[in-house]
Amino acid sequence: MISSSDDNEKLFVIKIGGNVIDDAVQLDSFLTHFSKIDNKKILVHGGGKIATSIGNQLNIQSNYINGRRITDDKTIDLVTMVYGGLVNKKIVAQLQAKHCNALGVTGADANLLPAKKRPVKEIDYGWVGDLRDEDIDAKNWKLFLENDLAPVVAALTHDGNGHVLNTNADTIASVIAVNLSSYYDVKLVFCFEKNGVLLEVEDENSVIHKINKENYLTLKKSNKLFAGILPKIDNAFDAINKGVNEVIIGNSSHLSSLIKGTGGTKISL
Amino acid sequence: MISSSDDNEKLFVIKIGGNVIDDAVQLDSFLTHFSKIDNKKILVHGGGKIATSIGNQLNIQSNYINGRRITDDKTIDLVTMVYGGLVNKKIVAQLQAKHCNALGVTGADANLLPAKKRPVKEIDYGWVGDLRDEDIDAKNWKLFLENDLAPVVAALTHDGNGHVLNTNADTIASVIAVNLSSYYDVKLVFCFEKNGVLLEVEDENSVIHKINKENYLTLKKSNKLFAGILPKIDNAFDAINKGVNEVIIGNSSHLSSLIKGTGGTKISL
Repeated sequence: MISSSDDNEKLFVIKIGGNVIDDAVQLDSFLTHFSKIDNKKILVHGGGKIATSIGNQLNIQSNYINGRRITDDKTIDLVTMVYGGLVNKKIVAQLQAKHCNALGVTGADANLLPAKKRPVKEIDYGWVGDLRDEDIDAKNWKLFLENDLAPVVAALTHDGNGHVLNTNADTIASVIAVNLSSYYDVKLVFCFEKNGVLLEVEDENSVIHKINKENYLTLKKSNKLFAGILPKIDNAFDAINKGVNEVIIGNSSHLSSLIKGTGGTKISL
Repeated sequence: MISSSDDNEKLFVIKIGGNVIDDAVQLDSFLTHFSKIDNKKILVHGGGKIATSIGNQLNIQSNYINGRRITDDKTIDLVTMVYGGLVNKKIVAQLQAKHCNALGVTGADANLLPAKKRPVKEIDYGWVGDLRDEDIDAKNWKLFLENDLAPVVAALTHDGNGHVLNTNADTIASVIAVNLSSYYDVKLVFCFEKNGVLLEVEDENSVIHKINKENYLTLKKSNKLFAGILPKIDNAFDAINKGVNEVIIGNSSHLSSLIKGTGGTKISL
């Protein structure tokens, strides 16, 4: 993967979680800020609680093994409906109203995200897809971005054999960001419910503004960081090592400042 | 609308109904034939019985006034999920497996089909959209077609104010066909459960192979045509008057012969 140079145009790849999707007021405010981003942009989303609630009404049980959700036949239909249909198209229609020319997609559309069904070892995860950076073709992503479309990506991929696959939204955002870093100066933004990486997990004002490889080692040694955030930071460095310019972690309510670089935690080399 | 000349490239706009979508074997066979069409192509679909069946499980009542379905808040969510998510993405994933680079869209995506919410007069149809030819911009349709993508269109439009709208799939297919007839030699294909326009409604072998304005008058006068088919033929002539080259009506099981021009009923000037 070629490192992006400063000459490349900026691209923001932004991932939102269920907390934004489940709250109509928060979602509307987020989409207003998203629509105002002047640069090229991609939004990646999952489904929030609405999938579970509709699943309950349809008597689709959520099955977990070792804390991981199993995607059986009924569940993949459920998430295809809810992520790929209800949530995706509502976001697209709302962005259109805000004059952002959104194009809602899954990884099956235009073969944007071909994946492999996770092999069955101890656990059969069902219709879950694993993505490899090298399987992604940037051609259609670039086609959409170069024609002023903002892809809105539901967290679904496909296996090339006719099946939609459930795939982690963080992974999708990272893989897209890494792939497009050959062509754009990519900033990968993970929105969640906290203000950033916190030095004191209960103190929203203790945001660490910058993490680089050096101070990350010191922070880890100090044992101050909340254990749950470590994989996120490791994944961020992984994306950066593969060409992403910067990873920003912060609160979805503060999108503008995350984009401007004045809020959240910036992770870079 | 400029008439398409023979120099233009061929484009097939093909509409399928619920009978194909509800039958997995029939759908698979139809998609195999669709994937083999060498020309540019667009597929338009509704939702079939699956929307009603999921609606029943979710306790969403189907409300009809004067035989027309009313699209209330819950119903627009239902059809957005089922048409725009479940049905659309299943078709797209299956076409990808058949090496057809499908792109699943609704009219909200890329602002492909901006519509007007139907005004409330005697009846409030709810979230139903009416399309006008002149509101459609061909730009993104052409972008997708020129880049070897096959749009798969769920029968949904949007109002530009953040709402998805339910819109008749026949109308959507016609409006797309008319708009793109300025750029392509458009063949508009309506697939249904009969072999074509029948001279004897119970005899599938009595297909009228060609209808033009002249013999249509004679046919109408003879009172032999099934009354239900007359609006379809009138709409076909309307599309032809606005630039569509030919309208073909026939059985979805015979897609290849409809495309080759050896099956179904061809309607032209």
